[in-house]
Amino acid sequence: MATDASHPIPHLISTIDELRATVASERQRGRRIGLVPTMGALHAGHLSLIEISNQECDVTIATIFVNPKQFSPSEDLDKYPRTIERDLELLSRLRVPFVFAPKEEQIYPTGFSTFVEPPSVALPLEGELRPHHFSGVATVVLKLFNLVQADVAYFGQKDYQQTLVIRRMVEDLGIPITIRTCPIIREQDGLAMSSRNCYLSPEERVQALSISRALREARRLVDAGERDAGKIRSTLRHVLEQAEISKIEYAQVVDRETLEELDRIEDSAIALIAVQVGKTRLIDNCLFEYEVNSS
Amino acid sequence: MATDASHPIPHLISTIDELRATVASERQRGRRIGLVPTMGALHAGHLSLIEISNQECDVTIATIFVNPKQFSPSEDLDKYPRTIERDLELLSRLRVPFVFAPKEEQIYPTGFSTFVEPPSVALPLEGELRPHHFSGVATVVLKLFNLVQADVAYFGQKDYQQTLVIRRMVEDLGIPITIRTCPIIREQDGLAMSSRNCYLSPEERVQALSISRALREARRLVDAGERDAGKIRSTLRHVLEQAEISKIEYAQVVDRETLEELDRIEDSAIALIAVQVGKTRLIDNCLFEYEVNSS
Repeated sequence: MATDASHPIPHLISTIDELRATVASERQRGRRIGLVPTMGALHAGHLSLIEISNQECDVTIATIFVNPKQFSPSEDLDKYPRTIERDLELLSRLRVPFVFAPKEEQIYPTGFSTFVEPPSVALPLEGELRPHHFSGVATVVLKLFNLVQADVAYFGQKDYQQTLVIRRMVEDLGIPITIRTCPIIREQDGLAMSSRNCYLSPEERVQALSISRALREARRLVDAGERDAGKIRSTLRHVLEQAEISKIEYAQVVDRETLEELDRIEDSAIALIAVQVGKTRLIDNCLFEYEVNSS
Repeated sequence: MATDASHPIPHLISTIDELRATVASERQRGRRIGLVPTMGALHAGHLSLIEISNQECDVTIATIFVNPKQFSPSEDLDKYPRTIERDLELLSRLRVPFVFAPKEEQIYPTGFSTFVEPPSVALPLEGELRPHHFSGVATVVLKLFNLVQADVAYFGQKDYQQTLVIRRMVEDLGIPITIRTCPIIREQDGLAMSSRNCYLSPEERVQALSISRALREARRLVDAGERDAGKIRSTLRHVLEQAEISKIEYAQVVDRETLEELDRIEDSAIALIAVQVGKTRLIDNCLFEYEVNSS
């Protein structure tokens, strides 16, 4: 990818001091700041968040930080893709002026020991499978909110439970920021964009398509009037099992706010899937919203 | 206490929405905001914080909230003194324009479940005796910081460990606020000002004077060159025991930053006391600072 002179590379900020100075200057000019927190390895999902921020804010600040505190020792922290030069090139095309990409000691200095105990919506699903994940997410997200002092922060619906955790944290702690949840972006074949998709072998990639296929099949049934959540769950499992996926971690139909298991789908629900395809963990979801008692 | 027309009663804000509107207006005018968080039952210690904020900031916002989450079930939440009218009168004399005194459901709405897991300096001393205290303190203080968006917040040195917990939380989470720790204010007889002093019977009040006497005796020894922390600890205990105080919870000489127990006092140290006098829990402390190797 060649750098186009009309798309200057974003200013790369690596220290908190420089970030604070930049933010102070932008705020003083009355600029509305949009924050797009990422772990890098940017894909079209991230870029859609940038585009929405660009539309709604005066200045977009992207952050790139592979947060060690949201990985467990058995997870893929070491092999998580790091593609900073390509990331900067992609951000330059979207005219992002500032990228905060701190070293670990900037975020977690010696003696760091304050954490967010995330809200109870962090407990089921991902919380059961990845016990410290949301504490790590909530802590780094709160720190980024404090450092960037954005007006709006943009998150993808693909990490649906994460968006609920962050929204509840913002409400509970009175954080002065608006949270925007943006639609899932998919590959042409339906696979939800993820920085982890690059781990998949061609055979695994075919298996992974069963995830979005299961969700589409669920939506088809609900659209056709099926309201028995148990039947929708069975359908999700059936499609995944047929694809002989390595492990189904969960395939659930739950309340969209509390994530409690539903018996029946009333006005809304969310179907959530987490699986392992080979050694790669993938998640996806589909929100159902219906008018009830519409006359 | 009569209200002087030249000292208007502060504007009493009880909802987060009104607080946010007030803060937004003050910030838009470029005003430097000082925050003095209190649990009410104001005394000269609180008022000294207000006075320092008045000197350093354009507008002081005091908060009054008896935070249930920092009391354990066995503690004095129910009988903690509530003197809002007198508090407002005192604040009016210091020309405080805004007082945020929310109901509990404003701070802890239904479903509230996000907490701060405080830094490790919260673990010893008060942390051992009051296991959830600093989690409750850190959570409410963070929320007040987020709501008031002050430039500076003022805390009293009497709650010394609390000031360390808050400073470390601010650093760890990158909270955009300056923390000022202000000197202990004492009654004429030496007793550190506390909203809990009103619980003391005349006899207990006499016993309670041994706390500041112990700290003064410790300072006298250290000023005279004593550097053996064990000897200073013995002195603290001896003075308290002579007064036949009900219970000595701790009488310690520790590192002023880490609160780790010291063998020797080098350039600095802090002596910290917590006792029960009758049913009343009282704390006090004394900071030692010395130039070492001065030539």
